[in-house]
Amino acid sequence: MKKITIVAFDKFTDVDVFLPWDLFNRVRLREKNWSVKIVGSKEQHISVTGIPVPTHGTLEECNSADVVFFASGAGTRSLINDPDYLKRFKLDHEKQIICSMCSGALVLAALGLLGGISATTYPTVIKELQSFGVEVEDKPLVVHGNIATAAGCLAAVDLIGWVIEKTLGTEIKEDVIASVQPVGKGLECIY
Amino acid sequence: MKKITIVAFDKFTDVDVFLPWDLFNRVRLREKNWSVKIVGSKEQHISVTGIPVPTHGTLEECNSADVVFFASGAGTRSLINDPDYLKRFKLDHEKQIICSMCSGALVLAALGLLGGISATTYPTVIKELQSFGVEVEDKPLVVHGNIATAAGCLAAVDLIGWVIEKTLGTEIKEDVIASVQPVGKGLECIY
Repeated sequence: MKKITIVAFDKFTDVDVFLPWDLFNRVRLREKNWSVKIVGSKEQHISVTGIPVPTHGTLEECNSADVVFFASGAGTRSLINDPDYLKRFKLDHEKQIICSMCSGALVLAALGLLGGISATTYPTVIKELQSFGVEVEDKPLVVHGNIATAAGCLAAVDLIGWVIEKTLGTEIKEDVIASVQPVGKGLECIY
Repeated sequence: MKKITIVAFDKFTDVDVFLPWDLFNRVRLREKNWSVKIVGSKEQHISVTGIPVPTHGTLEECNSADVVFFASGAGTRSLINDPDYLKRFKLDHEKQIICSMCSGALVLAALGLLGGISATTYPTVIKELQSFGVEVEDKPLVVHGNIATAAGCLAAVDLIGWVIEKTLGTEIKEDVIASVQPVGKGLECIY
């Protein structure tokens, strides 16, 4: 069973949790041995627009996951200054795929996962990310081994596509990504 | 105050509520006289993947809204066969903008809003929509006056862009749509 965790927190950007959540769940239409959970430090987190999302598990679930995805949003700023929060993660980029959207890259940096590699992030976050010594690239998706950062909400499609291809291969990736394209622009039904 | 209602229901497709929700809420960074509510027939609805979303109001709020957006999902099939549900809507396409994603077009058809005009929908829904006498087009977005249908999840970007342009003009539309583009592919910060 492949285990995917999406890390949410208070003041997350709605689309940066729910678009990856929807895309990752579509995989189950092709591969049943695939579990997706939204995890966090509370029983529910509230998005920046006020949408509550119940979590399916704790942050510690990330430590045994195959894929750990950090969402984005204003809430990342308090996480990176909270040592008790950060020390709950025991991630291993040799064994796990670890990725982020936009300001989620700050959490990767605070966890020491971006040492010596470049990353991408939302333009307003570039200076904060550089303050960790990270070289920031002006690209939608930056990949180094098992670590990937994406930026600009719709770049989630590229990022999740990359994760699916790396874990399950090209065919399932193409099926999932085609299933959300506009009619007449590549849409293929998956169900 | 412009009032936007997003109609949710049990077994909605996650991205078809939350992507429009996120895009519509970004408008408030430019125009404060803009209210967005998720409405439904229950205090909360559960998505097809099990995500609960509390509603902000009842279906009747649609009848005084400037924009009524019908989401998509497997749940639309029971709605169109429920006369008590349908009769709660008193919509007027002369005064209101009325739009749908994917199978949400079935609800528009069941409400008699697609008489004599064409529409688009998800490929698996074409026959059902045609059974209402609607001509189905193979396009991401079909617009007739104040009525618009879009299909293929990411076509929500085109649809919501069209709604914002029609209600608030080109500049705010371009700001909102640019704010979700991938880095290096048109992203412009709105906050």
